Amino acid sequence: MSTPAVSSRDLPHPTRAEIRLEGVLHALSDPMRLRIVRELAADGGELTCSHFDLPVTKSTSTHHFRVLREAGVVRQIYRGTAKMNGLRRDDLDDLFPGLVDALLGAAARQADRLGG
Amino acid sequence: MSTPAVSSRDLPHPTRAEIRLEGVLHALSDPMRLRIVRELAADGGELTCSHFDLPVTKSTSTHHFRVLREAGVVRQIYRGTAKMNGLRRDDLDDLFPGLVDALLGAAARQADRLGG
Repeated sequence: MSTPAVSSRDLPHPTRAEIRLEGVLHALSDPMRLRIVRELAADGGELTCSHFDLPVTKSTSTHHFRVLREAGVVRQIYRGTAKMNGLRRDDLDDLFPGLVDALLGAAARQADRLGG
Repeated sequence: MSTPAVSSRDLPHPTRAEIRLEGVLHALSDPMRLRIVRELAADGGELTCSHFDLPVTKSTSTHHFRVLREAGVVRQIYRGTAKMNGLRRDDLDDLFPGLVDALLGAAARQADRLGG
């Protein structure tokens, strides 16, 4: 059996070479998006959008995931009816060695400090 | 002789405790602002706004320095008639150990890659 119309559901992603530091930093400059990235990093795998219990509307949540995807921070893939999200850790670590760890460390430290 | 009206020329800065990671990342999410921070880090001291030969208007340049100041990334101090800019390295390193180095490393790596 073929898998029809998969391509039409593929979401656009920047290639590794197209990822820009400025875009990554912009994507992470929002508390909700930073939280999403921290959870994805802690999990290490793929999570559905609905896994994240964000205090925002569904459309705002969708927007945040799109910003992360378009910046090259997360990969969003349809698996059956579910849209799965995964951190593009390999791409980011290759482009900017040590940066993701430093950002996650800074976010954890701030959360500890502010009780977030 | 007194030094009148110094306080009226003082520019508002967040205290160390008020600096937020999201604000720092937003401040660095622009190519001009990233370039300013790289130059300040390379210099290690204070530089005037006019030192930076940015390909933008004076008002845009002023805006970029204000964003950096309000995020707690740079300190802007009037010395006589000159407005001097310095990286708040001590504050940032204390709040987020290793982050500034990782960001500068990532920016340098991208500049090498893209010929920037």
